Amino acid sequence: MATDAVSEEAPDAYARLVEKVKRISNVQNAGGLLGWDQQVMMPEGGTPARSQQLSTLSAISHELLVEDETGELLDELESQNLDEEQEAVVREVRREYERAVRVPTELVQQISEASSDALPAWEKAKAENDFEAFAPHLEKIVGLKREYAEQIDPDADPYAVLFADYEPYLPLEQAEEILEQVRETLVPMIAEIRESDADVTTDGFSRHAPFDEDEQEALSRDALTMLGYDWDRGRLDVSSHPFTSGTQFDARVTTRFDEDDPMGALMATIHEFGHAAYQLGLPDEHYGTPLGEPRNLSVHESQSRLWENFVGRSKAFWELFLPTFKEHFPQTGDVTVEEAFESANQVYEDNFIRVEADELTYHMHILVRFEIERALIAGDLDVADVPEVWNDKYEEYLGIRPETDSEGCLQDIHWSHGSFGYFPTYSLGSFMSAQLFAAAEEDIGGLDEQIREGEFDDLHEWLTEHVHRYGQRYETNELVKHATGEDFVADYFIDYVTEKYGELYDLDSA
Amino acid sequence: MATDAVSEEAPDAYARLVEKVKRISNVQNAGGLLGWDQQVMMPEGGTPARSQQLSTLSAISHELLVEDETGELLDELESQNLDEEQEAVVREVRREYERAVRVPTELVQQISEASSDALPAWEKAKAENDFEAFAPHLEKIVGLKREYAEQIDPDADPYAVLFADYEPYLPLEQAEEILEQVRETLVPMIAEIRESDADVTTDGFSRHAPFDEDEQEALSRDALTMLGYDWDRGRLDVSSHPFTSGTQFDARVTTRFDEDDPMGALMATIHEFGHAAYQLGLPDEHYGTPLGEPRNLSVHESQSRLWENFVGRSKAFWELFLPTFKEHFPQTGDVTVEEAFESANQVYEDNFIRVEADELTYHMHILVRFEIERALIAGDLDVADVPEVWNDKYEEYLGIRPETDSEGCLQDIHWSHGSFGYFPTYSLGSFMSAQLFAAAEEDIGGLDEQIREGEFDDLHEWLTEHVHRYGQRYETNELVKHATGEDFVADYFIDYVTEKYGELYDLDSA
Repeated sequence: MATDAVSEEAPDAYARLVEKVKRISNVQNAGGLLGWDQQVMMPEGGTPARSQQLSTLSAISHELLVEDETGELLDELESQNLDEEQEAVVREVRREYERAVRVPTELVQQISEASSDALPAWEKAKAENDFEAFAPHLEKIVGLKREYAEQIDPDADPYAVLFADYEPYLPLEQAEEILEQVRETLVPMIAEIRESDADVTTDGFSRHAPFDEDEQEALSRDALTMLGYDWDRGRLDVSSHPFTSGTQFDARVTTRFDEDDPMGALMATIHEFGHAAYQLGLPDEHYGTPLGEPRNLSVHESQSRLWENFVGRSKAFWELFLPTFKEHFPQTGDVTVEEAFESANQVYEDNFIRVEADELTYHMHILVRFEIERALIAGDLDVADVPEVWNDKYEEYLGIRPETDSEGCLQDIHWSHGSFGYFPTYSLGSFMSAQLFAAAEEDIGGLDEQIREGEFDDLHEWLTEHVHRYGQRYETNELVKHATGEDFVADYFIDYVTEKYGELYDLDSA
Repeated sequence: MATDAVSEEAPDAYARLVEKVKRISNVQNAGGLLGWDQQVMMPEGGTPARSQQLSTLSAISHELLVEDETGELLDELESQNLDEEQEAVVREVRREYERAVRVPTELVQQISEASSDALPAWEKAKAENDFEAFAPHLEKIVGLKREYAEQIDPDADPYAVLFADYEPYLPLEQAEEILEQVRETLVPMIAEIRESDADVTTDGFSRHAPFDEDEQEALSRDALTMLGYDWDRGRLDVSSHPFTSGTQFDARVTTRFDEDDPMGALMATIHEFGHAAYQLGLPDEHYGTPLGEPRNLSVHESQSRLWENFVGRSKAFWELFLPTFKEHFPQTGDVTVEEAFESANQVYEDNFIRVEADELTYHMHILVRFEIERALIAGDLDVADVPEVWNDKYEEYLGIRPETDSEGCLQDIHWSHGSFGYFPTYSLGSFMSAQLFAAAEEDIGGLDEQIREGEFDDLHEWLTEHVHRYGQRYETNELVKHATGEDFVADYFIDYVTEKYGELYDLDSA
């Protein structure tokens, strides 16, 4: 293309790129709705057709992205003077394009089909504690994802390639350093907690079980309303694994209930509220483009963990929320705020389930998965050996050994989705939430008092202003720096847990 | 393409055509799910994004169909020796292709967007009795559909072109003749009924109102279960207008409840059951091809009307079902089978609402719409005059005049969808159901007794065997002839209503 013609063509080329990107995004969002429906609404018999539908949408979205025209538009636009937002769109599409052109449509389709088949197989295997029934599915998915990484970059560590699908702008080295730093703090802290004589209430609510599921759902709805969930753009439903799905116009959350543990459902609901708040905070006018989409998974998880841990598990929140809780469950009339707070923050002695883990041991659950999936993708571990290795690692890090695979390596849905490299983003997001909450407190001041009063507008606005509204305009470290003044680091999380758990468990190290 | 090469290429060409058709079907079925979700699950704020998603899927499906390759494959296959099923697939795809290549993608997208915008506007206008607020949407849609018909065949009656979207193999002349024939019977019959002194119970249930909506839902579920609905491939939900959506793997029904009228909801549910039974009876192995899709709308409606009118409104059904009804609503303990049967079959004196109409006056509701939409599409009627003309026609055919547009021309969702030419299929389907039920009775015998015993397997199997399993293998008249031994005619319906209502209302003409 002649240079002198370019400046005149640039606006057209940008409009064409945006149109294309929106079309792709609409196809992907349609797929998102099909996925939500599959987990929340679809009758079981619908699986064969749904798998084909999802696979078709996935293939079409891939084909639209890798069309020659995409590359031509990007080439043209990269030689132009664009504003900061346009540059960000071009950067993000370029990245997606480069990764996509290296992966054949057929492979994308195979992964999508394998995942759709794996999902019901995993559900059944988990229900029946039958890892062997799931193993062929896992094996197939691992093989396909290795092939996927190989296609994108045959010279790179395949796990780093997969990790970059979720964390495109966080080098695996930085992530590992942060994880390592936290582990050095947590392992001795958890050990010290287990030897602590502190009298921490663990059964504030659970001693009053059972808790009716319909009533728990009403409680979850009250919590969402109190936190400021926009019901005009959302829903609450039940699924076997809580998740959030949607866009800035329609961000739906799910949760699940356990009659013995109302805290688990409530914290899951608040966690998903944080994800939905991020989606809903993305700018309406940029729907369908990178400027209207979430930055990446650690940032997404920072939002859910911030609301779950810094709001939902705070003493201030329980001063606010305990009366509502008691309205729904009058049998808990004798529970004190201190007991509720301690129950929400207890460090479990013998919990095998990641999604039911406390704030500290949670990251050990993640490390087990991180190490296993790295080894699987590297080809250093056979699928058949996963249960054994899983159980050994739980013994090593948490001093407990699962008795069944259902409460061991079959507990999570993620590998069925082919999501390798995803788990560490959960921990990274938790660490990031500490950094963001500290910055919000610095800017707003008195957040504790606001939470106690049920005033969440300032916090909500701060997060929208400093994180949500940017979509993918900034790279991860840039975004964190914009919001907090420095790159993403582990320090704030370490300070936070050291102080909180030091006090709670009378630790010497605090 | 050289003739000597063709026979070797034929199987490949057929496989390629089927692959393409399945891809299109998957995109359309994804759109179907998005539409279901929009009416049943979506929060209101989701509309802007959903409109774009539906519009994108609609455009993609259109573009895939009109690709040059489709025409090339069809040309190639039409010179081949194909078996009967393959020939049917080629015939159906050719028809779709020919209609689609004449319509520009942009127009398809405009219609889809206009419909998505019209839907919430219609809901609001209906709620607020504000036809003027809806008029611009209707005007836009009428204009776009005229343009659509013009693109397909500039020389044809545009209404006939639109009608053929729903009834590709039923000439408008045949349809009109049948409608005319029924009108000649019904108009005097309705007049005679209104002068009849027969003591027909009209308030068998309604005198016991109100009827709790949750309990009505439980009753609907019992009815669906009793009729043999496959819950593993279906759901029941609530929407403002009952409908059925899905495929042979997942056919969902909706209904809506009125605390004063449990019969309305129950008949709506049974009606949708008939639609779902047709979807579920389509062959699994042909999912995504014309052999696995319903023939057309009159056939679809024949299935819903058969279950609604010939089963749900029969005396035998009420002998079976009344005890279940009374279990849910003990206040109806004194209602007799005869009263229930009469209430289910009363001819209303002053009903303005099509979906609440009885079996006879129903077709007058359809004729009003048929005549108005023909005039709108022909350009002989302005949108602004629709309310006046609507009310005049109700006066002429039914002797009643709506007082508001909400209970007049705003009552139906269909025009918001751009569905012109659709309404007559409702009546045609009703007439066809009489012909099919007579043939089933001829083959099986004793259906009345089976219904009384709650045995629906024979009827279900007969319909699957003679109608459902063929998908689009036969043209409409061919299919009816296969099942009943003759072309589609009005006679069976006329005989049926003459006998049934003659007896019920002691008519001289019977």
